[in-house]
Amino acid sequence: MPRVVIVGGGFGGLEVAKGLRRAPADVLLLDRSNHHLFQPLLYQVATAALSPADIAAPVRSVLRRQRNTQVLMAEVHDVDLAGGRVLLAGGASLEYDHLVLATGSMTSYFGHDEWERLAPGLKTIDDATRIRRNVLLAFERAECADGAEQMRRLLTFVIVGGGPTGVEMAGSIAELAHQALRRDFRRINPQSARIILIEASPSILGGFEPSLARHARRDLIRLGVEVLEGVMVEDLTDEGVSTSQGFLASQNVIWAAGVRATPVARWLQVQPDRMGRVPVEPDLTVASHPKVFVIGDAALLAGPGGRPLPGVSPVAMQQGRYVAKVILRRLTGEGSLPPFRYRDKGMLATIGRGRAIAQMGRFRFAGLFAWLVWVFVHILYLVEFRARLIVLTQWAWAYLTWQRGARLITGLPEEQTRTLQQPAPGSSSESESSPLETQRKTPS
Amino acid sequence: MPRVVIVGGGFGGLEVAKGLRRAPADVLLLDRSNHHLFQPLLYQVATAALSPADIAAPVRSVLRRQRNTQVLMAEVHDVDLAGGRVLLAGGASLEYDHLVLATGSMTSYFGHDEWERLAPGLKTIDDATRIRRNVLLAFERAECADGAEQMRRLLTFVIVGGGPTGVEMAGSIAELAHQALRRDFRRINPQSARIILIEASPSILGGFEPSLARHARRDLIRLGVEVLEGVMVEDLTDEGVSTSQGFLASQNVIWAAGVRATPVARWLQVQPDRMGRVPVEPDLTVASHPKVFVIGDAALLAGPGGRPLPGVSPVAMQQGRYVAKVILRRLTGEGSLPPFRYRDKGMLATIGRGRAIAQMGRFRFAGLFAWLVWVFVHILYLVEFRARLIVLTQWAWAYLTWQRGARLITGLPEEQTRTLQQPAPGSSSESESSPLETQRKTPS
Repeated sequence: MPRVVIVGGGFGGLEVAKGLRRAPADVLLLDRSNHHLFQPLLYQVATAALSPADIAAPVRSVLRRQRNTQVLMAEVHDVDLAGGRVLLAGGASLEYDHLVLATGSMTSYFGHDEWERLAPGLKTIDDATRIRRNVLLAFERAECADGAEQMRRLLTFVIVGGGPTGVEMAGSIAELAHQALRRDFRRINPQSARIILIEASPSILGGFEPSLARHARRDLIRLGVEVLEGVMVEDLTDEGVSTSQGFLASQNVIWAAGVRATPVARWLQVQPDRMGRVPVEPDLTVASHPKVFVIGDAALLAGPGGRPLPGVSPVAMQQGRYVAKVILRRLTGEGSLPPFRYRDKGMLATIGRGRAIAQMGRFRFAGLFAWLVWVFVHILYLVEFRARLIVLTQWAWAYLTWQRGARLITGLPEEQTRTLQQPAPGSSSESESSPLETQRKTPS
Repeated sequence: MPRVVIVGGGFGGLEVAKGLRRAPADVLLLDRSNHHLFQPLLYQVATAALSPADIAAPVRSVLRRQRNTQVLMAEVHDVDLAGGRVLLAGGASLEYDHLVLATGSMTSYFGHDEWERLAPGLKTIDDATRIRRNVLLAFERAECADGAEQMRRLLTFVIVGGGPTGVEMAGSIAELAHQALRRDFRRINPQSARIILIEASPSILGGFEPSLARHARRDLIRLGVEVLEGVMVEDLTDEGVSTSQGFLASQNVIWAAGVRATPVARWLQVQPDRMGRVPVEPDLTVASHPKVFVIGDAALLAGPGGRPLPGVSPVAMQQGRYVAKVILRRLTGEGSLPPFRYRDKGMLATIGRGRAIAQMGRFRFAGLFAWLVWVFVHILYLVEFRARLIVLTQWAWAYLTWQRGARLITGLPEEQTRTLQQPAPGSSSESESSPLETQRKTPS
């Protein structure tokens, strides 16, 4: 039986596998992690609204009923195009007859990889729990901070990048600080937290119509987010963010400014575009390698109007279904398919509860109705019924109470716990402003 | 206002704080983590049935309505008894008028701390996600293992310690392997996984009546668990477990054999018992330090019959409520209370779905009814209503489908991902038994 190897169990890879469920082939799906992740809701994990398991499902569990399909948790290292083999980390390798690379994208710091330590991106569950830990810890630390200045720095959240992810993060942190945590602290007022969204281009949500972007900006400001447009980030340090319009003291910077494709171009030895994407033919194969397909965020293909298709899940899913059909036709000896054509079903972005914008064909709408559409679409796509049910319960509960169900600080490195109480440099635990000793002081 | 400092936000500490909600005092609760954890269900997180957030709630959220109470995430380092101060990691300190130490217990390896690396215990959320990762990874690795021997070692799970935690872990892993994962793999048969429960004393569940322990053993065996009683663990290595009855090759050892109290005895400079517990007076204070209370797992107090009270949540909770009353009486100048008396409401242990044992006063029962009592009691005690609702939904779903909702491998160290495919020592990726190359081989 011919073997189809799919690398990546995201939206694209999973659709390829599903499309081949009745194919006369051995289908092998490889992924570094064991789970398919519903990335559009990852920001809700990062802001303690959902648990990781609510938006993820084991890939092998999703594909359990497909007897021709095997799932392996493995990391691909390289592709041997001449030998028709995928090379795995650890030294093993796998032959393929058809190869689909659906490896997605990763956070890009535009050449400043040292910023990763200071400003986590949001691509994996571990990213999300890291951000959740940082955000929740900021409030805990502020509650026992030395002095007003340190407290302010701890309670200043800077989100770099005003695309949908940055907007969702900013809105969600604002709701967390201003609503969910409102009554939980004694010394600090979480409502005084500053949430700052920085966008380098003249407008946030550049992919949307200007009128919708303006609507989103108004909603963000109503939620208490400071929106800085046309502002460039020049440097990140432990102290904060240097921008083209001045310095922002902050210990919580979140990076939503850009992604680049995973190193597929290097594996295939082709010249990628600026974002690391591999140019593909109209049938999504790689030039002069008809057995190799690249789809989703890793592929560069012009859409209507000549602009590259965006790195969003509908593109990856449609491409995945298309590639499955191409492979199926090859296996059964049927003729070839017309070139891939993306059917744009529109764009949605949510700002907060009851607030969203939508652009679908000729329709533009914003507010509660757009948000309901957003909720409906996202629940519809959640892979497993179980997840849907739980997420609905969580959301219903959160909507009624403003509470967040997953406010856990976990995975704290030992030394970080130890130094949580460490006085800030330049202050002393006996200083006037120390929270712990304000009420009474005795010589130690 | 006098200040009451409570160290630890577990079952005991939380009851002290709640009992003081109307006290004329500043109540300050310190905990290393930000959440109260419902430890009795931690094994369900470790076996992917529940998410961490389902069984944990932020301490400050639980106590948000108590205006006299402040919660700080901080680690206590020592107690200055003479100065009446609690010393925090980082150098700060806190005065107290009344101090309650409710710091619980930690996993004890009986002098073999090097075993911690090989056999995680189960006390914190990070412990549970570590075990979950190990258990799920074992199946993933077995699916691409080299050779039958490595596969068997990967699919052998050894649980050391036959108390309630060990029994629950063994039963739950058996259900995971034999039911939830049944159809998810292609090369391995998860039903062939061996789950071995080792208990050093002559019987598992020694705290229960022999007839109930026998019932539990029968249930475990029906679930496919091998129960080894009267077997001592002599050594742990990367290869497996050396016992008094031979060697068990296993890469998954879980430690449920013992706990010891946190270092409270050292802070108080008193002689602890063998398990690190601090002897307390009948009013739960420390001898000659009437301002200092120790409760819960960290305290040593004789119960009816002269045996020390067990380290279970009802003891901690009743002691917490008692101490709150003692402090309240002191604050309001009322007379003292009679000595603390533990009201034993019985013991429960669950083996698997529909299987449990219960010992309550003169009643002994086992099976479905005991299990329903167990479910009822555990849901009743779950701190937050939200958690209760979600857990019920999860359980209902799991009960109907045998599925596990939280099968996520997260927090994987980078190098571990990379070496997932590493052939085992002594085998080669070109060997006959390699899964990846069994079907066709080409010279590499």
